[in-house]
Amino acid sequence: MRTQVALITPVVTAGIRTLDDVRPLERPDLSVTHSLLDAGPASIESEFDEALCVPDTVRKAMDAERAGAHAIVIDCMGDPGLGACREAVRIPVLGPCQVSLHVAATLGHRVGFVTVLDRIRPLIDRLVAAYGLRDSYASFRAVDVPVLHLGSDRAGLQAALAREALAAVRDDGADVLVLGCTGFLGCAGAMREALLEQGLDVPVVDPIPLTIHVADALVRSGLAHSGRTYPPPGRKARKGYSFPEFLPAP
Amino acid sequence: MRTQVALITPVVTAGIRTLDDVRPLERPDLSVTHSLLDAGPASIESEFDEALCVPDTVRKAMDAERAGAHAIVIDCMGDPGLGACREAVRIPVLGPCQVSLHVAATLGHRVGFVTVLDRIRPLIDRLVAAYGLRDSYASFRAVDVPVLHLGSDRAGLQAALAREALAAVRDDGADVLVLGCTGFLGCAGAMREALLEQGLDVPVVDPIPLTIHVADALVRSGLAHSGRTYPPPGRKARKGYSFPEFLPAP
Amino acid sequence: MRTQVALITPVVTAGIRTLDDVRPLERPDLSVTHSLLDAGPASIESEFDEALCVPDTVRKAMDAERAGAHAIVIDCMGDPGLGACREAVRIPVLGPCQVSLHVAATLGHRVGFVTVLDRIRPLIDRLVAAYGLRDSYASFRAVDVPVLHLGSDRAGLQAALAREALAAVRDDGADVLVLGCTGFLGCAGAMREALLEQGLDVPVVDPIPLTIHVADALVRSGLAHSGRTYPPPGRKARKGYSFPEFLPAP
Amino acid sequence: MRTQVALITPVVTAGIRTLDDVRPLERPDLSVTHSLLDAGPASIESEFDEALCVPDTVRKAMDAERAGAHAIVIDCMGDPGLGACREAVRIPVLGPCQVSLHVAATLGHRVGFVTVLDRIRPLIDRLVAAYGLRDSYASFRAVDVPVLHLGSDRAGLQAALAREALAAVRDDGADVLVLGCTGFLGCAGAMREALLEQGLDVPVVDPIPLTIHVADALVRSGLAHSGRTYPPPGRKARKGYSFPEFLPAP
Amino acid sequence: MRTQVALITPVVTAGIRTLDDVRPLERPDLSVTHSLLDAGPASIESEFDEALCVPDTVRKAMDAERAGAHAIVIDCMGDPGLGACREAVRIPVLGPCQVSLHVAATLGHRVGFVTVLDRIRPLIDRLVAAYGLRDSYASFRAVDVPVLHLGSDRAGLQAALAREALAAVRDDGADVLVLGCTGFLGCAGAMREALLEQGLDVPVVDPIPLTIHVADALVRSGLAHSGRTYPPPGRKARKGYSFPEFLPAP
Amino acid sequence: MRTQVALITPVVTAGIRTLDDVRPLERPDLSVTHSLLDAGPASIESEFDEALCVPDTVRKAMDAERAGAHAIVIDCMGDPGLGACREAVRIPVLGPCQVSLHVAATLGHRVGFVTVLDRIRPLIDRLVAAYGLRDSYASFRAVDVPVLHLGSDRAGLQAALAREALAAVRDDGADVLVLGCTGFLGCAGAMREALLEQGLDVPVVDPIPLTIHVADALVRSGLAHSGRTYPPPGRKARKGYSFPEFLPAP
Repeated sequence: MRTQVALITPVVTAGIRTLDDVRPLERPDLSVTHSLLDAGPASIESEFDEALCVPDTVRKAMDAERAGAHAIVIDCMGDPGLGACREAVRIPVLGPCQVSLHVAATLGHRVGFVTVLDRIRPLIDRLVAAYGLRDSYASFRAVDVPVLHLGSDRAGLQAALAREALAAVRDDGADVLVLGCTGFLGCAGAMREALLEQGLDVPVVDPIPLTIHVADALVRSGLAHSGRTYPPPGRKARKGYSFPEFLPAP
Repeated sequence: MRTQVALITPVVTAGIRTLDDVRPLERPDLSVTHSLLDAGPASIESEFDEALCVPDTVRKAMDAERAGAHAIVIDCMGDPGLGACREAVRIPVLGPCQVSLHVAATLGHRVGFVTVLDRIRPLIDRLVAAYGLRDSYASFRAVDVPVLHLGSDRAGLQAALAREALAAVRDDGADVLVLGCTGFLGCAGAMREALLEQGLDVPVVDPIPLTIHVADALVRSGLAHSGRTYPPPGRKARKGYSFPEFLPAP
Repeated sequence: MRTQVALITPVVTAGIRTLDDVRPLERPDLSVTHSLLDAGPASIESEFDEALCVPDTVRKAMDAERAGAHAIVIDCMGDPGLGACREAVRIPVLGPCQVSLHVAATLGHRVGFVTVLDRIRPLIDRLVAAYGLRDSYASFRAVDVPVLHLGSDRAGLQAALAREALAAVRDDGADVLVLGCTGFLGCAGAMREALLEQGLDVPVVDPIPLTIHVADALVRSGLAHSGRTYPPPGRKARKGYSFPEFLPAP
Repeated sequence: MRTQVALITPVVTAGIRTLDDVRPLERPDLSVTHSLLDAGPASIESEFDEALCVPDTVRKAMDAERAGAHAIVIDCMGDPGLGACREAVRIPVLGPCQVSLHVAATLGHRVGFVTVLDRIRPLIDRLVAAYGLRDSYASFRAVDVPVLHLGSDRAGLQAALAREALAAVRDDGADVLVLGCTGFLGCAGAMREALLEQGLDVPVVDPIPLTIHVADALVRSGLAHSGRTYPPPGRKARKGYSFPEFLPAP
Repeated sequence: MRTQVALITPVVTAGIRTLDDVRPLERPDLSVTHSLLDAGPASIESEFDEALCVPDTVRKAMDAERAGAHAIVIDCMGDPGLGACREAVRIPVLGPCQVSLHVAATLGHRVGFVTVLDRIRPLIDRLVAAYGLRDSYASFRAVDVPVLHLGSDRAGLQAALAREALAAVRDDGADVLVLGCTGFLGCAGAMREALLEQGLDVPVVDPIPLTIHVADALVRSGLAHSGRTYPPPGRKARKGYSFPEFLPAP
Repeated sequence: MRTQVALITPVVTAGIRTLDDVRPLERPDLSVTHSLLDAGPASIESEFDEALCVPDTVRKAMDAERAGAHAIVIDCMGDPGLGACREAVRIPVLGPCQVSLHVAATLGHRVGFVTVLDRIRPLIDRLVAAYGLRDSYASFRAVDVPVLHLGSDRAGLQAALAREALAAVRDDGADVLVLGCTGFLGCAGAMREALLEQGLDVPVVDPIPLTIHVADALVRSGLAHSGRTYPPPGRKARKGYSFPEFLPAP
């Protein structure tokens, strides 16, 4: 069996993510598809941005399920729409923040989170609490680069990530690190090297590759989210949005 | 000064809430306005419903601020859009679930929550965790009546509420109760009476009246939410939604 | 209806608080009365001081209820006698520490507490735990000025408060601040200004005004503390104190 | 060295406790003295009762220290006045609730508490939280006998204790039990026997003997409470009470 | 690349687990090897049993790493020796209890654990606490069948598992279930069917298949445990055991 | 009655601990015996070391019980084998880490732990969590001296302990300190003096003396660990170890 994972990047910015980014993860028994949103924000850096991306993310998740995907990965570390998507489809839907934090917690004592902007600290704290992981959470650090500028100075970004990684380990007691923005894809290796040069053997989780591989593991284990926690949305009118699947039965 | 509170009912169902419901709360120095959504679900009973109500709830909150409101109350016990609205406006935005749980926690040792449907148990649990109130939370109970049927058998509803209230106090150790759906407006008195008849002196919080009065207390104390936790959304493109206020400066 | 709130300052020092301090809070539908203790400490800075203020605080609370008050506010951030007063009267009794911490927790992600002396750190920690608010508590800071010296150098006090406020926000991650001594009444505005000058939009809770307004909100919502948590004291002999109301029935 | 432990029963009821009760604990290197209060309640069953017992309990603790005691044990499971006494004296002051809960937590996975009246459930819960022991606390059970009636039907009391003990173990998952009232002195043996008859090997802590022995262990280890947590009360006026030791220096 | 996972069953009972049990998990890019212990207990049902299995489990882990394995899975839900093995080897070592609990926590709100014997309840509770997962843990249930009798009445076992599963969901509020003994391998399907027949859509985690797939995901993501949490054992004498690798350098 | 406490030092290094170290604790009604291991590590500084010491520690505990000891103290702050020993014997078995942390938590608000090596930080954190004491735990500090070098520079060690003690109190908010290695026996006095010189009245717990005295207190109170938490190991084959007591009945 070839597992088919649908990666949904919940923004409208063309080119911010392409299939090329994740093609190296494909193998004979794993393929990945990719989609962006038609309606939603240019990037996600606030609860306001999250709110605007969810309706179309659910739409794209339902499309992916219908197109035969075995699992869905939401390409944002705020895991926007995770619950709503899970109510709307029955194949596993994975949030890279939830998966990365849980897996990181299995790899070492305490987890550090290194991300883009200080302003999302409360959002991440609330996710950590919602995921039941307060006891494993050591540190939040930000490089203070907005998402849409991530590509402009890759060397500067790597240096900033290394600096915050070091502080998370030395000052905050982190034993494992999680890259806190999916726009950091590919930065884990250099970050881990920078830590090793300081004598610190600390794993660095790159969320999208890990989450795609865990999605594959779930599919092969026959597991999906609980229908007790995420029952299908009832049928009712929902003005201004097109979800005919959940309209009242005629 | 006359405090002006804007109540936003985040659904599209005409008549499910009218200004008449809250007019008794008005007094010489407190007035209340009311609005429904133009786009959104008929009722809120899932994360999917919540997702669809938030964009227009934010719109209505921005409209209310512009119209001179001093505070905004979101009329749903899931507090949908609370964070997004707080980012978008600078007047206080209150969620009745957050306010009711916190105030209830000041009135007695442990709080019981009695609501419509068992399926929202995980949503409420996550709100309790996000609000930092796990230690005060005793009990979740549901009468198993969908929101849109609440009006059809008021006597049966009151009986079911009394039954679950009694179980929350006797079996789960609740000392204070919170009505878990704003559609229960006006049911607190009979519920408290039913408990007193059993010798149980237990306060019952009716969320909308309490939240409107607490909104007034915040306004008179000169308090609003923190800009550190809820900074304004950055300016950027957001396709499919009309928020010209947050478009990139020309 | 005009809500009548009785403010009880649980010390014996004449002039440390007068009705003039809270008169600005009065309005056509809210009046405030005030009393000091006849027996008790000059100020409250230890568990020993708290112990000596409680018996007469309960006496004053019972007097206020008999005199027609609708709610009682204890004028000390240690909330001394809160539980004993609640057992003794049936009108709502509010502690400014409990109310301020809970309301602050609704305004932002984490709460900082700025108070007089470092030695009360464990007392406040225990209140935070007893109130179920550990998850929302970011920071304890003290200006190291004893209560009875608060009036002597107001400018120095404001500077110290601003310094500790800044540290609480920048170093400890507080998003909202609570003034940790009711003797700081009136200092919130300058503190908030000092933070805004540093670009930090952080609300500062002045406990007595907020608690009086919340008392009003409870009264208008028909709420008081739970009789399950605070049942009346049984009737029995209590040597050395005069509480005829709770003597054994003859 | 012969350790001298002063037992202070913080009520005024003559005969409710006598030195004979604890004399069996004495041995060549351990002696016990005993005192009752001159001012305070007849028994302790509410926060109101606790408030009225603390001032004279502190007085008795200071007297005991002056008389040469090496340690003080407060003879009530609410540990009333524990902090205030610790501020006032430098020899160790022990609360039987704190000691019993902590020691019980070292003997088995989860601790059950079996006491007199259901109404003290919130008080005990708050002590458990204040002592940092929520994670070890399994169960609260009450036999519903007021303290002053404990002596009237000893057989009935033992039967009720056995019944609640069994429920705490079987239904609530307790692995160790703590007698929740010092008036239960001497009841642990029969309770443990009743559990063993059901095949349940569960230790039952009798708080006063254990706490006196732990007081001895502290004294022999040269340990007392922390001056950082319990600094001496400052010198100041305290009207209506006689503590010349803490008056302002002349 | 073909991932090679070494499964170590930490007991000495021949036939209790064979490679045939896990061969169905193999695929072109995943192979599994298997080993039993030479020294250790017949089964693991106590801390005593765990203690006796760890030294040889570490030995087998070091052998597997030397033989070219990419990851190691310990075949027991007590995760015995997880930390010691991680110190001794640098390839990822996975405990099925840790992996299953964490993954289950991503699939639904609260996790129920259904296992062999009630006596391991405290062991599992302590693992849950050590793994930082108290907030996600709903329920412990046991079928009361010793490990070595699991094979004797498979139908009876399945019925008992279904019964406890139902109780975990209905009475304890579990949304996801974890099979609590690796001897239950293959029982998840029938258990899930039994729940679906009652209208309960609840995933059931079969720990060994899931953990092997997650091991593969870690390997493909280039991740292993943290050297900060699990540094190599220092070199020193260790009498009675043969670990020449960790003897002092000559 | 003369209490007989057996101290088991769970390493094989002759002379690292002798009876002379604890003889000063003996008195007419308390005697102490001592044993080292025949099989195990030279010192304990990792989970690997712990794993190798447990089997023979259990053996020595069973020998001590048979020889008439009333209680057993394991002489290592990792409390290795605490649970396994408790399953194997019925007299109380005490771990100095568990006893010291719990007793310290009764002496002041928050506890600091000062030990040998930074690498055991996660081990101690996990013990703290397993013992249910997270809420009382303030600080972990290490002097960075391996156990086997502790004797070589006693003055340097004392200076390092004083430095870390000061940091634990001033920077981490510890109110009570626990010596984190039983090899620090006798260092508490100088450490407390160094703190007092800085005006800090902070108790310092020396674990072995305290634990021996608490063992005596338990014995005199008739208490031992719970058979519900620590039931005897079942009878079964255990290859490579000699525990005839737990072999299947013939």
